[in-house]
Amino acid sequence: MVTNPSKSFWSKYQTRWMQTGSLVCIGLDSDISLLPKHLLHEANPVFAFNRLIVENTIDYAVAFKPNLAFYLKDGMRGIDALYQTLEFIPEEIPVIIDAKVGDIGNTMDAYVSAFVDSYCADAITINPLMGRDVLSSLLSNPDAFGFVLCLTSNPSASDFLMQDKLDEKIASLITSYSSRRLGAVVGATQTTDLQRLRSLMPEQLFLIPGIGAQGGDLEAVIRYASSTKTNPNILINSSRGIIFKDKSIDFAKVAKAEAQKLHSEIRQLLET
Amino acid sequence: MVTNPSKSFWSKYQTRWMQTGSLVCIGLDSDISLLPKHLLHEANPVFAFNRLIVENTIDYAVAFKPNLAFYLKDGMRGIDALYQTLEFIPEEIPVIIDAKVGDIGNTMDAYVSAFVDSYCADAITINPLMGRDVLSSLLSNPDAFGFVLCLTSNPSASDFLMQDKLDEKIASLITSYSSRRLGAVVGATQTTDLQRLRSLMPEQLFLIPGIGAQGGDLEAVIRYASSTKTNPNILINSSRGIIFKDKSIDFAKVAKAEAQKLHSEIRQLLET
Repeated sequence: MVTNPSKSFWSKYQTRWMQTGSLVCIGLDSDISLLPKHLLHEANPVFAFNRLIVENTIDYAVAFKPNLAFYLKDGMRGIDALYQTLEFIPEEIPVIIDAKVGDIGNTMDAYVSAFVDSYCADAITINPLMGRDVLSSLLSNPDAFGFVLCLTSNPSASDFLMQDKLDEKIASLITSYSSRRLGAVVGATQTTDLQRLRSLMPEQLFLIPGIGAQGGDLEAVIRYASSTKTNPNILINSSRGIIFKDKSIDFAKVAKAEAQKLHSEIRQLLET
Repeated sequence: MVTNPSKSFWSKYQTRWMQTGSLVCIGLDSDISLLPKHLLHEANPVFAFNRLIVENTIDYAVAFKPNLAFYLKDGMRGIDALYQTLEFIPEEIPVIIDAKVGDIGNTMDAYVSAFVDSYCADAITINPLMGRDVLSSLLSNPDAFGFVLCLTSNPSASDFLMQDKLDEKIASLITSYSSRRLGAVVGATQTTDLQRLRSLMPEQLFLIPGIGAQGGDLEAVIRYASSTKTNPNILINSSRGIIFKDKSIDFAKVAKAEAQKLHSEIRQLLET
């Protein structure tokens, strides 16, 4: 298979960052039970919702990230919504399917085949618990990019990830491959964790979940998780804070305003 | 929600074990690209395949385990096949959806809602990397059972799971909950690992993947992974070795013979 470099996640991200200055990743956690009521009459409510969210937030989006769980929840219609959403998002904007898959052999081949070849996602999230074997299917597909779970911000990250430097061992696995093929999921946690993991992974893309519109967290992320201010190598994800901020007929306009607000806050922090 | 205890995975497993003496879990890794060619003309080839596999192997099955990756790979039709398969398998036979999900909060709620409430699976497999938070959605649903990834048999299990006793820390998390709600995925590896993990989890159900028809592995598993011979608390999974042993028009008869063979080998080992 011949790869056109401009089609890879890494190059789409770089181009989008340079052209728009955006670092906002819009999380499409499009839970059927949380949609604005008026959309439930649509043939495919989840796709109808996503279409309006994408149209309204696209100017501020460096990437979109649909979360598989919410598409499975709506059955076959949900899977159809996922397909339609990926088809609807313009080619130049990279898409990450968030499913935190971590398996081996023909199972991982099937996930990569589904997400990358069939749904045409540019990247997937990966759970590395079973070790480097989980990466081989992804790495053998020259178009695919993986964000590997490294540190999360939930309380029980202390059970395993923060014990015996497991997060640093995962970082070491990530940096043993090209930064154009693998990045890291790094929860927005303590300043020291962000600094520590960035120093271990100087060039890797960080996908950072768990940011609300709180200036505090955001400031620490921009300051300590960026590679440099001109080349931050981060994607700051916001899901519910943007897409479900409002449930009225105006939800998409409100989502647009929230995405713009987060984008502006990030721009300001980058410029100071 | 009122739980009928006889509907739980744990009690279905116990009943099935007592009634049939079977410990064989049939892995429905029903990859569209590996199906017998004559089935590709069916409206839903994956379901047509599963129906025949289930009908022919059911007498030897303590459980069935569809692997999500292969259903996603066939798009909407694949998800339809998964629904139809779960509907087709008789109520009294427990079904595990293998997706090794490991997420938190509303994402994990959505997975549990999809797999347990909507697809009506009795159990799911879980990746515990993010810590105990990944268990709360499952445990708050009284009908759901989880098999938590503890040790796997792939070479790179040594990257993380076999370092700093991570497998034992996971075992300790599993045993902090009821054995009627959580079991462990334990790869068929070294005798010493099987003994060690069984001694740490004396009453938990072990889901054991990676068994071919090799007498050696199987003997070690029966001997060292069973709780007792009268109450082994194990499920021995075989996928490709049963379902894809033959690709001719007779594939289902061959699958039946393979399931029967594995069942007989296990019975013999239990009786010696």
